[in-house]
Amino acid sequence: MDRFEAQHLLYAERVRESFSRQRVMDLIGATLGDVEPGRVTIALAHRADLVQQHGYVHAGIVGTIADSAGGYAAYTLMPEGSSVLSVEYKLNLLAPADGERLLATGRVIKPGRTLTVCELEVEVWKDGTPRTCAWGLQTVICLRDRSDGPG
Amino acid sequence: MDRFEAQHLLYAERVRESFSRQRVMDLIGATLGDVEPGRVTIALAHRADLVQQHGYVHAGIVGTIADSAGGYAAYTLMPEGSSVLSVEYKLNLLAPADGERLLATGRVIKPGRTLTVCELEVEVWKDGTPRTCAWGLQTVICLRDRSDGPG
Amino acid sequence: MDRFEAQHLLYAERVRESFSRQRVMDLIGATLGDVEPGRVTIALAHRADLVQQHGYVHAGIVGTIADSAGGYAAYTLMPEGSSVLSVEYKLNLLAPADGERLLATGRVIKPGRTLTVCELEVEVWKDGTPRTCAWGLQTVICLRDRSDGPG
Amino acid sequence: MDRFEAQHLLYAERVRESFSRQRVMDLIGATLGDVEPGRVTIALAHRADLVQQHGYVHAGIVGTIADSAGGYAAYTLMPEGSSVLSVEYKLNLLAPADGERLLATGRVIKPGRTLTVCELEVEVWKDGTPRTCAWGLQTVICLRDRSDGPG
Repeated sequence: MDRFEAQHLLYAERVRESFSRQRVMDLIGATLGDVEPGRVTIALAHRADLVQQHGYVHAGIVGTIADSAGGYAAYTLMPEGSSVLSVEYKLNLLAPADGERLLATGRVIKPGRTLTVCELEVEVWKDGTPRTCAWGLQTVICLRDRSDGPG
Repeated sequence: MDRFEAQHLLYAERVRESFSRQRVMDLIGATLGDVEPGRVTIALAHRADLVQQHGYVHAGIVGTIADSAGGYAAYTLMPEGSSVLSVEYKLNLLAPADGERLLATGRVIKPGRTLTVCELEVEVWKDGTPRTCAWGLQTVICLRDRSDGPG
Repeated sequence: MDRFEAQHLLYAERVRESFSRQRVMDLIGATLGDVEPGRVTIALAHRADLVQQHGYVHAGIVGTIADSAGGYAAYTLMPEGSSVLSVEYKLNLLAPADGERLLATGRVIKPGRTLTVCELEVEVWKDGTPRTCAWGLQTVICLRDRSDGPG
Repeated sequence: MDRFEAQHLLYAERVRESFSRQRVMDLIGATLGDVEPGRVTIALAHRADLVQQHGYVHAGIVGTIADSAGGYAAYTLMPEGSSVLSVEYKLNLLAPADGERLLATGRVIKPGRTLTVCELEVEVWKDGTPRTCAWGLQTVICLRDRSDGPG
């Protein structure tokens, strides 16, 4: 993966501030982890009220943290006065989200003035061992008329 | 879209029972709507704790109800003693989920012994008018060794 | 599906002219069919040199006509002086492309100033009967600085 | 990326034999490159009859070599007496396929008894320098009743 350079000095603060306004992250208990140029992680502890019928974290919640991780990864590379919006995402569910904790990583594959493409990976940690449980691809768009994060 | 026939007499009861065990649906306030052979809807009222940074329902929550609607649409066509699992889904976000209420519809495009493909549509209702805010495509797999719904 | 209005009087001529420059369509023997606002079809006769190892038309060739059908469907709705480019496409292969002839249809789901989302369907005709063999979703971008079709 | 082990001693021969029956590869001039457990490459020289209206290799042809590279990457890990079929693929087009030569790489992310998920990457080489022009994700299915490759 290439290394990227942020265009905005306060890119990490901007991501953290925007994340704090994603109230759904509070609801599900997700927390922001690493914020680097082109790479952002979001962690989520297992909770009994996040599950589908087999007791694993629901694929849509896996998608929720993956989508935000990718959107914010793209946002780290965007200029001042811009905001991002998810255009589309696709997620392959490789294994049940069965463990104590999920870690979603969004990585920019291709930054662009208008569109940025990210790779999404979600690992599930069980008994101290990580396992990739979802892998995805996402397109996000940079909007120049307002200052805000993805979603 | 074709018309499909359920293989299981109690397909609707089976879906409702499985949905009731998707505890994440309680957390976000989603409710099951129509359950027909090859077609299922899930409704979600807007709530301030479901939003991203602009105040719209988060794309991942949109994906959560879309994924379950599609999974259960597939499940209506599966034989007794089977369960479904989402293999992958892809969602295009067409408009912000800005309104009082969302309605996700999962429609089977192609049923199959092992794999079923569904179309996903999410409408947002605002001031009494619906607008499609997300459109997707999903692959689900039928597992023959246990009796359970998607997720 | 909604009905759309073309913004350009000569939208059909523009599509036909651009298609004629897609030399790969000549190579595989694809021909342009209907060109309506928001909807374009492309036909392809079976040929022994288009196949994969089982003798069916290769999934990538199915994708080639589907991608162009969707791109041109989007192009019918774009203003003068613009061109389109595929941003991404996703295709589910529902059945082998086993028949005498394929018909790809691109339908605009959501037109936009910058991004347009299309639904892609490919039917295979065998012994006079059509069967859907692929279903997809595509995002295309409108570029304002040159006059050209998708690809 | 993990390292994988082939289950079939003659996995490479099996891939080469199947590829030789994909007659569309002859038509477009694609050649098989590396065949390793979980990783296969396919090369394609630029040709004037492969292009879309701007003179770049058509996105569908990019998809054709990407889809086969991924399908064969999955096939390297499958047992004797099995065949593979693409279930779905999604491709993000990151840059025009503008160069002398394309190289598609299929990499297995997650092998499975029934479904295998692959990452697809296509590089375009121009003046001796590679550039990623497409990135994708693919699901392939293992069929146990016949011995054949993907497509």
